[in-house]
Amino acid sequence: MPEGQPFRFKTRIRFIDTDASGRIHYTAMFRYFESAEIEFMRARGITYDRSDYAFPRVHVDCDFMLAMAHDDLIEIEVCLTRLGRSSARFEFRTFKGDDLAAKGTVVIACMDRRTQRAIPIPDDLRAKLVSAADAYPNAAEIGG
Amino acid sequence: MPEGQPFRFKTRIRFIDTDASGRIHYTAMFRYFESAEIEFMRARGITYDRSDYAFPRVHVDCDFMLAMAHDDLIEIEVCLTRLGRSSARFEFRTFKGDDLAAKGTVVIACMDRRTQRAIPIPDDLRAKLVSAADAYPNAAEIGG
Amino acid sequence: MPEGQPFRFKTRIRFIDTDASGRIHYTAMFRYFESAEIEFMRARGITYDRSDYAFPRVHVDCDFMLAMAHDDLIEIEVCLTRLGRSSARFEFRTFKGDDLAAKGTVVIACMDRRTQRAIPIPDDLRAKLVSAADAYPNAAEIGG
Amino acid sequence: MPEGQPFRFKTRIRFIDTDASGRIHYTAMFRYFESAEIEFMRARGITYDRSDYAFPRVHVDCDFMLAMAHDDLIEIEVCLTRLGRSSARFEFRTFKGDDLAAKGTVVIACMDRRTQRAIPIPDDLRAKLVSAADAYPNAAEIGG
Repeated sequence: MPEGQPFRFKTRIRFIDTDASGRIHYTAMFRYFESAEIEFMRARGITYDRSDYAFPRVHVDCDFMLAMAHDDLIEIEVCLTRLGRSSARFEFRTFKGDDLAAKGTVVIACMDRRTQRAIPIPDDLRAKLVSAADAYPNAAEIGG
Repeated sequence: MPEGQPFRFKTRIRFIDTDASGRIHYTAMFRYFESAEIEFMRARGITYDRSDYAFPRVHVDCDFMLAMAHDDLIEIEVCLTRLGRSSARFEFRTFKGDDLAAKGTVVIACMDRRTQRAIPIPDDLRAKLVSAADAYPNAAEIGG
Repeated sequence: MPEGQPFRFKTRIRFIDTDASGRIHYTAMFRYFESAEIEFMRARGITYDRSDYAFPRVHVDCDFMLAMAHDDLIEIEVCLTRLGRSSARFEFRTFKGDDLAAKGTVVIACMDRRTQRAIPIPDDLRAKLVSAADAYPNAAEIGG
Repeated sequence: MPEGQPFRFKTRIRFIDTDASGRIHYTAMFRYFESAEIEFMRARGITYDRSDYAFPRVHVDCDFMLAMAHDDLIEIEVCLTRLGRSSARFEFRTFKGDDLAAKGTVVIACMDRRTQRAIPIPDDLRAKLVSAADAYPNAAEIGG
């Protein structure tokens, strides 16, 4: 993946993810964002499981621009656009061909699994995330 | 339902709606918002089906304040807080006991099912929604 | 609940549980079976959580007789039809009005959460389940 | 794909498809079966959409042999094992590495979308399915 190229995750809209309107049920976009986030992390050597911390979502949003239907091929661009002391923000843009079909945000907090309380993002994880954020021109805010 | 009392929808967090974190998977909150919206509409004599129009979601967001787990009883307050010419905004507040556990927004557009294009909200539907919005002190913006 | 009357769980088909065929996505029936099972257990004083054992599903099946669509009111009858040493079988019948719309089976095994191995159903739980099975004429097989 | 080799569909267990047991929620296996079926059909030049017929499921079942958790790579083998006049049966076997983790069946009926009644499987579709069934030694029953 060349420097400066945002990570992209490709998927098809699955039939189970449609509803009686004939199009995607909007919540499925968050499913695909989640898969995209996990693959983005994997590409940076980060897996969420079997660690002492977890990443509950504290904020999510999505805007929908285009109708999407069963079997449509979509591509989701993932950017880490904020890396705080104990939280991080991902931004997602979903493309159907060349057209922007949806865009959304997911803010995660770092939590100690045992105490269920917010903790600073561990240093090793932060190091990997900083380099991820570094790679992207739109990853402007990387704070303490 | 007395004037000025927001509509409330009660549900349990279902096991299928949890994930390996041991808590609710955040997308399930949108499932419950949807059920709450549909029951809110039913209470006003509005059912979405078998009509010439549909209501795709154009924006959704949610903030999570508290952990929710399987079997938790939650109550979701629904307010119609904006009624535009061809769109409407619902706001949702999820309570676990007396505590605010999540809050979110859903903006729907009115669409002609046949042409798949935005249309003004039909008059009969608008009349029912205006009276719904009227009832609530926080339903401030009701525009043309 | 009078003796001999099977437990019934009532729900509506939710919009999110439909697909582009315009009808229920069949997997949603298992969602409703699960809710029905949990409420059946609750009515017998059994809650699955915070115990040392878990109940993974080892077999599930469902036959579909009638189309079901968004907002349909359905009622699910739950019977415990087999209680083995370390497993139990539930049978479900879904009614739409008076018509049988679906019927299915779920076989659960009792597992020690820590070792992840099958264990005999604990005595206190068994006692509650036996009385549940007793109540129903169709709960024929209750074995060791 | 060489003759006699069953079609295989590879996927990861997604986080959203787990539950508070820490493992896959069993209904997700049917999600993966559905994707596997659609890709199996696509490989034979069959797409379900924009046709005059639909394929509601009339029977589904699944047996679970192994625990599956978030991020596990699984492979699903698809075989068409019965092709009747107006119905077809698929069998699925899910492998985690070399181990059989689950196996299931899905029986679909061919339905006229307009009348919502069962119809014989159209000839062009049948021709494609017969050749699919032909390819597999375990596709024993191909009837009228």
